[in-house]
Amino acid sequence: MKSMKKNKINLEEYNRNFPSSRKIYKEINDIKIPYRAITICDSTDDKKEFHVYDTTGPYTEPNFNIDLDNGLPKIRNKWINERSESFNSDKKFKNNITQLTYARNGIITKEMEYVAARENSYYSNSEKNITPEFVRSEVESGRAIIPSNIKHPELEPMIIGKSFLTKVNSNIGNSPVKSDIEEELDKLLWSVRWGADTVMDLSTGKNIFETREAIIRNSPVPIGTVPIYEALEKVKGKAENLTYEIFKEVIISQAEQGVDYFTIHAGLRLSYIPTTTNRLTGIVSRGGSIIAKWCLAHHKENFLYENFDDLCDIMKKYDVSFSLGDGLRPGSIADANDEAQFLELKTLGELTARAQAKGVQVMIEGPGHVPLNKIKENVTLEEKYCNEAPFYTLGPLVTDIAPGYDHITSAIGAANIGSYGTALLCYVTPKEHLGLPNKEDVKDGLVAYKIAAHASDISKGHSFAVERDNELSKARFEFRWLDQFNLSLDPYKAKEFHDETLPQESAKSAHFCSMCGPNFCSMKITQDIRDYASQNNIKDIKIAVEEGMKQKSKQFAASGNKIYIKK
Amino acid sequence: MKSMKKNKINLEEYNRNFPSSRKIYKEINDIKIPYRAITICDSTDDKKEFHVYDTTGPYTEPNFNIDLDNGLPKIRNKWINERSESFNSDKKFKNNITQLTYARNGIITKEMEYVAARENSYYSNSEKNITPEFVRSEVESGRAIIPSNIKHPELEPMIIGKSFLTKVNSNIGNSPVKSDIEEELDKLLWSVRWGADTVMDLSTGKNIFETREAIIRNSPVPIGTVPIYEALEKVKGKAENLTYEIFKEVIISQAEQGVDYFTIHAGLRLSYIPTTTNRLTGIVSRGGSIIAKWCLAHHKENFLYENFDDLCDIMKKYDVSFSLGDGLRPGSIADANDEAQFLELKTLGELTARAQAKGVQVMIEGPGHVPLNKIKENVTLEEKYCNEAPFYTLGPLVTDIAPGYDHITSAIGAANIGSYGTALLCYVTPKEHLGLPNKEDVKDGLVAYKIAAHASDISKGHSFAVERDNELSKARFEFRWLDQFNLSLDPYKAKEFHDETLPQESAKSAHFCSMCGPNFCSMKITQDIRDYASQNNIKDIKIAVEEGMKQKSKQFAASGNKIYIKK
Repeated sequence: MKSMKKNKINLEEYNRNFPSSRKIYKEINDIKIPYRAITICDSTDDKKEFHVYDTTGPYTEPNFNIDLDNGLPKIRNKWINERSESFNSDKKFKNNITQLTYARNGIITKEMEYVAARENSYYSNSEKNITPEFVRSEVESGRAIIPSNIKHPELEPMIIGKSFLTKVNSNIGNSPVKSDIEEELDKLLWSVRWGADTVMDLSTGKNIFETREAIIRNSPVPIGTVPIYEALEKVKGKAENLTYEIFKEVIISQAEQGVDYFTIHAGLRLSYIPTTTNRLTGIVSRGGSIIAKWCLAHHKENFLYENFDDLCDIMKKYDVSFSLGDGLRPGSIADANDEAQFLELKTLGELTARAQAKGVQVMIEGPGHVPLNKIKENVTLEEKYCNEAPFYTLGPLVTDIAPGYDHITSAIGAANIGSYGTALLCYVTPKEHLGLPNKEDVKDGLVAYKIAAHASDISKGHSFAVERDNELSKARFEFRWLDQFNLSLDPYKAKEFHDETLPQESAKSAHFCSMCGPNFCSMKITQDIRDYASQNNIKDIKIAVEEGMKQKSKQFAASGNKIYIKK
Repeated sequence: MKSMKKNKINLEEYNRNFPSSRKIYKEINDIKIPYRAITICDSTDDKKEFHVYDTTGPYTEPNFNIDLDNGLPKIRNKWINERSESFNSDKKFKNNITQLTYARNGIITKEMEYVAARENSYYSNSEKNITPEFVRSEVESGRAIIPSNIKHPELEPMIIGKSFLTKVNSNIGNSPVKSDIEEELDKLLWSVRWGADTVMDLSTGKNIFETREAIIRNSPVPIGTVPIYEALEKVKGKAENLTYEIFKEVIISQAEQGVDYFTIHAGLRLSYIPTTTNRLTGIVSRGGSIIAKWCLAHHKENFLYENFDDLCDIMKKYDVSFSLGDGLRPGSIADANDEAQFLELKTLGELTARAQAKGVQVMIEGPGHVPLNKIKENVTLEEKYCNEAPFYTLGPLVTDIAPGYDHITSAIGAANIGSYGTALLCYVTPKEHLGLPNKEDVKDGLVAYKIAAHASDISKGHSFAVERDNELSKARFEFRWLDQFNLSLDPYKAKEFHDETLPQESAKSAHFCSMCGPNFCSMKITQDIRDYASQNNIKDIKIAVEEGMKQKSKQFAASGNKIYIKK
């Protein structure tokens, strides 16, 4: 890799953890699972820290020396080599070293142990909750995948499946109009800092290979690509000149680099194309439209469909997962859930079975633009056709009329589709439909999607998620402002907004805020009610109310109807 | 009213319409219904303008002379006076001049005619769609209300009910910590400019009366208040010193000023208070906590519940609508849908029946903080207990962990609850839980809620809403950039974001954008496919595919596989 100019990348910023936070690891056997420990500054019980899931990689370790030229430590090499030695005499694992193949053979890999621990809260005992064996069985069934190319040993394993925490994907990558390796690398670091569980490099501009190499070597999260973009560059943008051989060369090269999952539009068959001609917005998937153009130009079946088994044979050598692309996803509310979309989805189901039979891990991509009343059908059909393979959706956007705010239109759809069981939510930034996202857009998109994913998890009752809401709400109710900020998704913004009206340091311990002021503070009045109840030793205040509390009322008045009793 | 210093309010800005937009009125009999006509700059069919619902009032008329000292024209005075003359001998309408009372007596008021027309798109004939008679019947049943105090003749009538477009409420108002009449007036103009259908003045600081007077006289939309805030100021913030007499004085004074709806927490009964003591966040409604404190201090039943009939008798003289407050709404995910919340909701149902029996219009306030999986139950129970009176909800927020982004956490909940039939969505700004919103926050909150309301309407299939998505998506697909910007909720931001990467004027007619560049443009490739189909006179291209299209394929190749054919 060429030496990076690090002028643009603020390494100090990445080395700093979030406010009042430190990186910790939970050690189980010889694996170390990362968490972010948030200090509770003003604890009212015995809790001194609260631990959250951490996607930031080693960057936020206090003394980690960031070296973008040499990349991250290759933590998985030992595991991969050990497996290779253990099973090198076993024919089953010759050219087939996927997590799915191991799972099928009853083997719990280190990656499975890792993600099992990671899905539990720091203090919980994974033996009692999400166990390595449960992870193995979910991978075996195809309901979950662990994207983890053996050539990407820098990866901190994570799992995608509806029984686990809902994950978020960030898209980065240059375009022919705007291109800069360092800028994309900066977006990678920025993405994992703000919670991206996976990152796709969608580069279509210059230096595609070098950009991807820099991204993979420095990424603690799985990296996905859409290989047809690089293939198209190789034929100078002329879709009709594509061949399977060119495509194959690209995917071998990318698999060798360490890409963890490929978006491949193998389900868009020739005969489906005419069903799109009466759509309001035709084909809006880039990959889908390239394939459609090729199919029409040659009047031949999609070469990715025709060579699907060969693709599987390549991918299973590296454990690259399929992200089966929805080339016919709707690009507008008007086109949602139409014939074209569901014809392709059914074919993705057929391909899922074929890939899984060969041991290749699979997830399925989904829309797009879908009104609220049509979202659930997408999940129902995906699960039905595709053997409950993890669903990975772009939004969906629930209206078309808000360019500039599509992180919001799509977070609404994402939270809904997540609550129905979608496992991975591909973010949409405010720049969607208008331009390439900058760093601020990447952050805004990620925060909106962390909200959507978290809302899904709460809706599904995932305790690791619910605990954080309760911790923050408790801090809010007790006027522990710093704790409220630090426990939030974006502590910087929460503090900044608070300080806009009340910048004084004393306001951080004030038992009111600028919204209501002291007299109108409902939280304070509730505290009065509680204090009143406890002072009067009313074990069951409800009974007391029913029996008549006039006596207590007099006592309350005698105590001066005190508004707030400082602890 | 004191003469306004207009230094802070940029009147020129309010006089200007949105880009490529003009104010028009649809005239039916002697009423004029406002729309915003957006010019289609680069039409590809015979459509030259697209008309959207317009809440901006006369401010956006080209030559309207904004006079904040004297307020808006009193357009309803003629209707109100005519009704008074027509019915002055009719005892039914003595001290009871509500829209509900007229509806019950088979009278279609001007307000009903107005909203019927307003709910239809500009060109549609309301006789065939939402008719005045339908409006009357919805008001009669209590499923819809038209908040319209006879002392607020400046109002452009609007309707709130699940059969109509979902509406959005903006909260403004000063606080003891921050207070300025002109600033609040500015927020009113700003709110209606950005689509607020109703506005609540929640002032709790200085000059409550004068601030409200300035707001009502200049408001084209219904104004709501929470009268207990002013009552509390009158007893210097000591809740226990409140009396019904003081409260009554306040509501008569506010009704005389022209407030269109009152939030009144009459459903929070003494015996419900103990059910909140084990909550994570107790009572978070300001009004609710004031009442709870009063009840406990005196050990007496809520004086608003005890005097409810008297309240009705006052309100029906002016046609002030009830917004029955949910003083026990949950303030955290942990407290959602609990005993306290639903006990109060049931009482609101009892009060709804009592108010409606007296002819007073009623809507019901709802939460708050609710996880996605518990939202629907709120609507189901509200409709069951409250005779389907319009539901008016604050969000709900679907997670507690994102202070600084609660316009998003709550827009997710709002879109959902709207799709289930909630009629009015009370916005939440990014400053929620942290501070008072400034103008930018008001706008961000409103845009997020226009998205939520619109997504609900699309989900419910309201054609007036769906048409806009289709119009914008068509413009997007046809690369009519200016039309895409102008048709969007925030044309300024859409253009600004596009221009960040491609500022040149020529890019506005470019048939690609900065995201994909020319080769990867899926929309362009789809256009190729369509052009190919039309050039080859394939009426049913699907059959052609099935029959084999090799011949066509050769023709396409012979035509140079042209990428884009300019019309």
